Amino acid sequence: MKNYSDLYRDALLKDVIPFWERNSIDKQAGGYFTCLDRFGNVYDTDKFIWLQGRQAWTFSMLYNKVERNQFWLDIAKHGIDFLKTYGKDKNGNFYFSLTREGKPLIQPYNIFSDCFASMAFAQYGLAANDEESTELAVETFQNILSRKSNPKGKYTKAFPETRPLKNFSLPMILSNLCLELEPLLSPELVEQTIDACIHEVMEVFLDKESNLIYENLLSDGSFSDSFEGRLINPGHGIEAMWFIMDIAHRRNDSELMDKAIQVVVSLLEFGWDEEHGGIFYFLDVKGKPPMNLEWDQKLWWVHLETLVALAKAYRFTQDQKIFNLFEKVHNYSWDHFSDPEAGEWFGYLNRRGEVLLPLKGGKWKGCFHVPRAMYQVWKSFDTF
Amino acid sequence: MKNYSDLYRDALLKDVIPFWERNSIDKQAGGYFTCLDRFGNVYDTDKFIWLQGRQAWTFSMLYNKVERNQFWLDIAKHGIDFLKTYGKDKNGNFYFSLTREGKPLIQPYNIFSDCFASMAFAQYGLAANDEESTELAVETFQNILSRKSNPKGKYTKAFPETRPLKNFSLPMILSNLCLELEPLLSPELVEQTIDACIHEVMEVFLDKESNLIYENLLSDGSFSDSFEGRLINPGHGIEAMWFIMDIAHRRNDSELMDKAIQVVVSLLEFGWDEEHGGIFYFLDVKGKPPMNLEWDQKLWWVHLETLVALAKAYRFTQDQKIFNLFEKVHNYSWDHFSDPEAGEWFGYLNRRGEVLLPLKGGKWKGCFHVPRAMYQVWKSFDTF
Repeated sequence: MKNYSDLYRDALLKDVIPFWERNSIDKQAGGYFTCLDRFGNVYDTDKFIWLQGRQAWTFSMLYNKVERNQFWLDIAKHGIDFLKTYGKDKNGNFYFSLTREGKPLIQPYNIFSDCFASMAFAQYGLAANDEESTELAVETFQNILSRKSNPKGKYTKAFPETRPLKNFSLPMILSNLCLELEPLLSPELVEQTIDACIHEVMEVFLDKESNLIYENLLSDGSFSDSFEGRLINPGHGIEAMWFIMDIAHRRNDSELMDKAIQVVVSLLEFGWDEEHGGIFYFLDVKGKPPMNLEWDQKLWWVHLETLVALAKAYRFTQDQKIFNLFEKVHNYSWDHFSDPEAGEWFGYLNRRGEVLLPLKGGKWKGCFHVPRAMYQVWKSFDTF
Repeated sequence: MKNYSDLYRDALLKDVIPFWERNSIDKQAGGYFTCLDRFGNVYDTDKFIWLQGRQAWTFSMLYNKVERNQFWLDIAKHGIDFLKTYGKDKNGNFYFSLTREGKPLIQPYNIFSDCFASMAFAQYGLAANDEESTELAVETFQNILSRKSNPKGKYTKAFPETRPLKNFSLPMILSNLCLELEPLLSPELVEQTIDACIHEVMEVFLDKESNLIYENLLSDGSFSDSFEGRLINPGHGIEAMWFIMDIAHRRNDSELMDKAIQVVVSLLEFGWDEEHGGIFYFLDVKGKPPMNLEWDQKLWWVHLETLVALAKAYRFTQDQKIFNLFEKVHNYSWDHFSDPEAGEWFGYLNRRGEVLLPLKGGKWKGCFHVPRAMYQVWKSFDTF
C-alpha cells in the first residue's frame, strides 16, 4: 500500500497545500480568500466563517501532525487573528459571512460556523501554545452545546410543534469536534458527549433495517414521510461513519467499528450511480423525486470523505472487498476531480462527471476536505 | 398564426387543465395536491401556499376569461376555502406551507405566499362575486405594501447596513399584481403602484448598458459586485418584461413597449445555451461561477414565460425577427418539456435537456406557469 500512501502524501504536500499557500492569503485585509477560480485567481472577496475556520484548522493540524513548519503556523495565525477580531457578535455567536475587511454580512444563523471556529481555535491553540485560542475553543464549544436544542434560534422557519424535526448534522459534527477538543475538555464531558453522539448517530439516525442514515427525523426519533424526512445524503452519512470509526478505535470497540463499516458499505451501494459512476449528492429513501435540484451532481467532498472512510475501514479490517471499493472510488475521483494542469481538485461535477463549476474554491469549498482527506488516506495506508 | 393559437388552446383545455382536474383535488382534506409524479400520482401531501393560491387563481381566471364553467369555479372554491381557513396567521400573513390537513409547517417568511394568495382571492372574488374574497385580496395587498421595505421581517439573515441589498422580485410581482387587482383598488393606488413599478423595474433594476436585469442591487440602486449582485436570472427578467408590456399596452405607451421588447431579446440572447439549446436558469453577469449549483438547468417556467413574452412582442410588433425567436424557443420547449405520453409538462431538465426530475408538480411547480402561458400564447396569436 506504499503507493497509495505516497500518492496522497505527495498530492497534499506538493499540490494542494502549495495551491492554498500561493493563492488564498489576503495580506492586505487578513484572513483567507476562498473564492478561487481554476487557476487560483480570486473572483470574489467575501469571507465565509466556515471556510476561515476550516483553513486555519488545516494549517494548524499540519503543523501539529506533519511538520513544525513556521510558515504553516503563520498562515494559521493569519486566519485565527481575523476570526478573533471580526468573527463573532457580542454574544459570542459566529457570523456566517463577512466582507473582505471583516464587516458582518450574514447573521449567526448557522451553528456550524461556531463548530469550525471552535475546531480551528483548539488546533491552533495547541500548535501555538496560545491560551487565548484554547479558551475561545472551549467557550465556543460550550456555547454550541447550549444552543444545541435550537441551533437556528430566531431564524428557524419551522412552525413550533406541527412537525418537530431534528437534524443529523449537529450530532454528526459533535462526534468529531469532541475528539478535536479532547485535550482541552474534562474527561467526563468528553465521554458524555461521545456517548450522546454514538447514541444519536448509531441508534437514532441510523435506520437499522436499511443501514442508511437519515438527515432529518421527528424529535421522538421516528421517520417523517416528508421531503426532509425522506432525504438521504450518502456522503454526509459516510463522513459521519469515519468519525464513529475514530471513536471506536479510541474506545477499542470492535463491534461499533464493524457496524460503522457496514453502514459505509450500505450508503455507498445506495448512493452509487450505476450509469455514470460516482456518488449522488441527495436521494429520496423511497425513490421519490428529491427536493434538491442538485441531487444528481457529484461533489468533491462526498468522494473524498468516502475515500477516508474506506481507507480507515481497510486499515482496520484488511478486507479485500473494502479495498476494492476504495479503488473504485479512488479511480473515479482521480479521473474526474483532480486537475493536474492547474492543481487542486474541482468541486462540482454534473452527473456525467463533467466540470459544472470551474472553481477551486467558493462559498462552500475551501482548504479543508481535500487536504484533510489527503492526510487521512496517507496515514491510513502508511503502516502497511 | 391560427396554428399556434389552436395548439396552445388545445394544450390548455385538452391536456394541462384536465391533468390538474383529475389528479390534484384533495377531496378529503381540502385544497390541492401539487406533488404529482409523471403520471399524476400523489407522492407527497404537503400544501405549499404559493401553489394553493396559484391553482385557485388559474381556475378562477379560466372561469372569468375562457368559459363560465361551474366545475372550474368549484375547483377554485376548493382552494379558496382551504386558504381562507388555514392559510394565514393571526396577523394576516400567509404561511409558506401547511400539512395536508392545514396545520402550519413553515412560518410566513416569504411575502410571495401573500402575493399569490391576494391574486387568487381577487380573481375568485370577481368570478364568484364573493365579497369576503375581494376584501381579503385588498387587505392582503395592503399588507404586502406595508411589509415591502422589510419583506422577510425577523427571518432576514442579512446584517443591517453592511451591504443593504434590495431584490427585484417584489417590484416585479407587484407590476402584475396591481393589474390583477385593478378592479378592486382605487385608480390612484393603481396608477401610483404602476408608476413605482415601472420606475423600479425599468429605471433601477434594468442595466441600461447591457439591457439585462439584475436580481439584487444595493439599496441606493448601484451595482453590488458580490454573488448576489452579479446574479442574472434570464427567465425572471423576461417574465417581468411581459408584465411591463401589459402595462405599456394599457397605457398606450409605445416607448415603454419597445424598451421592454428589447430587454426580452437581450436577456434571451444572454441566457441562451448555444451548446445544448434552452435558457440557463442562472448566470453571473461577469461570467464568474454562479453561486447556484442548479445554474445550468433548463426550467419549464423560464421557457414558458419567454414564450409569453415573445408571443406578446410579436403581437405588438409583427416583427419577423421576434417571430423567429418565438419559434426557436417554441421548438426547444415542445421537444423537451412536453410529455405527450403522460400529459402536462416536465419541470426540470438538465443542461442537455434530459429529464432531471420526472415530476409534473412539486414544492414549486403547480398548476400555474403552464396553463397561464398556454392561455397567454393562445390569446396573443388569436387575432391574426
